[in-house]
Amino acid sequence: MTNRTINFYAGPAGLPLEALKRAQDELLDFAGTGMSVMEISHRSKEYDAVHEEAISLTKELLNIPDNYKVLLLQGGAHLSFGMIPLNLLRSGRKADYITTGNWAEKAFKEAKLVAGDNVREAASTKGEKFARLPKASELDINPEAAYVHFTSNNTVEGTQWKDFPKTDKPYICDMSSDIMWRPFDVSQFGLIYAGAQKNLGPSGVTLTIVREDFLEMCQAQDLPSYLRYKIHADKNSLYNTPPTFGIYILRNVLAHNKAIGGLDAIHRNNLRKAELLYGCIDRHAGFYRPFVTVKEHRSTMNVDFFLPTPEQDDAFVKAAKAAGMVGLKGYRDVGGIRVSMYNAVSVANVETLVAFMEEFVSKQG
Amino acid sequence: MTNRTINFYAGPAGLPLEALKRAQDELLDFAGTGMSVMEISHRSKEYDAVHEEAISLTKELLNIPDNYKVLLLQGGAHLSFGMIPLNLLRSGRKADYITTGNWAEKAFKEAKLVAGDNVREAASTKGEKFARLPKASELDINPEAAYVHFTSNNTVEGTQWKDFPKTDKPYICDMSSDIMWRPFDVSQFGLIYAGAQKNLGPSGVTLTIVREDFLEMCQAQDLPSYLRYKIHADKNSLYNTPPTFGIYILRNVLAHNKAIGGLDAIHRNNLRKAELLYGCIDRHAGFYRPFVTVKEHRSTMNVDFFLPTPEQDDAFVKAAKAAGMVGLKGYRDVGGIRVSMYNAVSVANVETLVAFMEEFVSKQG
Repeated sequence: MTNRTINFYAGPAGLPLEALKRAQDELLDFAGTGMSVMEISHRSKEYDAVHEEAISLTKELLNIPDNYKVLLLQGGAHLSFGMIPLNLLRSGRKADYITTGNWAEKAFKEAKLVAGDNVREAASTKGEKFARLPKASELDINPEAAYVHFTSNNTVEGTQWKDFPKTDKPYICDMSSDIMWRPFDVSQFGLIYAGAQKNLGPSGVTLTIVREDFLEMCQAQDLPSYLRYKIHADKNSLYNTPPTFGIYILRNVLAHNKAIGGLDAIHRNNLRKAELLYGCIDRHAGFYRPFVTVKEHRSTMNVDFFLPTPEQDDAFVKAAKAAGMVGLKGYRDVGGIRVSMYNAVSVANVETLVAFMEEFVSKQG
Repeated sequence: MTNRTINFYAGPAGLPLEALKRAQDELLDFAGTGMSVMEISHRSKEYDAVHEEAISLTKELLNIPDNYKVLLLQGGAHLSFGMIPLNLLRSGRKADYITTGNWAEKAFKEAKLVAGDNVREAASTKGEKFARLPKASELDINPEAAYVHFTSNNTVEGTQWKDFPKTDKPYICDMSSDIMWRPFDVSQFGLIYAGAQKNLGPSGVTLTIVREDFLEMCQAQDLPSYLRYKIHADKNSLYNTPPTFGIYILRNVLAHNKAIGGLDAIHRNNLRKAELLYGCIDRHAGFYRPFVTVKEHRSTMNVDFFLPTPEQDDAFVKAAKAAGMVGLKGYRDVGGIRVSMYNAVSVANVETLVAFMEEFVSKQG
């Protein structure tokens, strides 16, 4: 199995081949049980070892302090958009949201559904089509806000907070599209959530990291139990049946991440990939026009650009597909080309794309 | 791979070997994409075909009328326990719950969290440890109830509504542990939900079947979007990223179910399995004491019984494991032995268990 397609999907997205091969090898006989991991009880010792390893590898790779719990939930970022205000804001607490893209705006709107005017927009770059992040001077933080929510990487627009916003508030952050792209200081965050399907594993698992003081703020007794972070934390994400196979693949991905040198090594790869791709775009700035023009806001994960005409965009996508590369069509709100190059995309994959881009531009010349 | 363990787990539970082999064969290259099904976009045509097939096979196998939508959600029965009253009861509607076991009681308690006194217990057999179902004369149905909720099969206690309760109300039913054990008339139901991990696939997928009039009752605009059935129905369960790999396995299981003759054939197998196992228990009623004594209430899916002493229960579980059979330890609230024999458990598997039981009792004699 060496003829793997080069996968630039925005999510669900490519996974490390080693993590998948491990799953394939033991799909019918996991850990000597004579059963698939998806066929065994979530209370069995064989599954429990996977569950614990997924949690402990997350703690190790992200260097998570002891006053945090790692939860393995369902429903993706969408359910988290609702759970966060349901748990934290119904008592009248206030929160600020920084809206920097399609997904950040959804998080804000969902919070407003639950908490109304207690939720404020602390800044928005919507007037500029979210093509840049707000400046520090544009952040209007409510002194009464219990947290500031932001989206670390804007998947649709291709911006990324490499320096996190500067406020004195604890953060809640949607890291669905760039978690583990590099090491970072977790202690600034009250809660981090990430749908697994971009950088971590298959869809259907939501990695959630909560600080204990935030858990203690989650006291709404009249919420359905599945929606209460506190219950999942108290039961180590085994209050109900977790998505066991998804967590197993997450474990395989995390074990692979550790084996290749952890987040420092992954960070180096991601910087190199960004350098290669943006280098090509900048060399041919008249042909590959980037959506994000503020260089320090450019995402290392999702790169949006336009060819001179929509017809050329289409021809590019088609020619790339013929060359074994998929997932390059831009998101409908932006158009053009989007290259998603999460952790599982290799430097060699991006080199192949860049060679293709060089050839494509030369042919149009 | 012929040395498969005989799997009597209560859930997650065994799956048809054919469904797993299909997954294994194409784990690295799905539908000629050169990628795993879990690596491709939920908007790709290759995934879309799987999604549509899972839905259409569900409709076909259950003979679902056209005025129903089939949804593929997350969060298991636990999240459904909350979503149902959040969608249907916050406007002041009333509902009745029949509590016949551990899970039925959870559904009732979660509904009460949301809707308080608008939710009533229409009957309960808790006083008898849920060892039987209520009689028709014990059902106290509120004329104002918008629905009556019941649990078609009580996984912990081993009772099953082979004749559904008789009322003139539409039903909402948790069918997590016996959906597709046989054909049934869907038209009596306003909403059916089932965590996939017992009879349908891996954990992390919740099959939900909703009648259009019930969907129209779901108008709560201030609920977070993920919690709204109407949104999922309008977007064909693609409002957010669905658990694509779980749905793919569900598709494989349903395709297998169809290939072996559909629910009529599965029903015959399940009746034969129940006849074999209960036959053995009844032949040795002094040694294998059934938890459920009303024969017509006995579940075809989960069978609870006790040996004369807890020490013999333990010896039974241990000896069965040595003979290649797992998952037989009873649930903590009941104790003893529980045999879960969902659709993927074959008649031959139950014959093996019964032969073991005969030998076990003869040795004790």
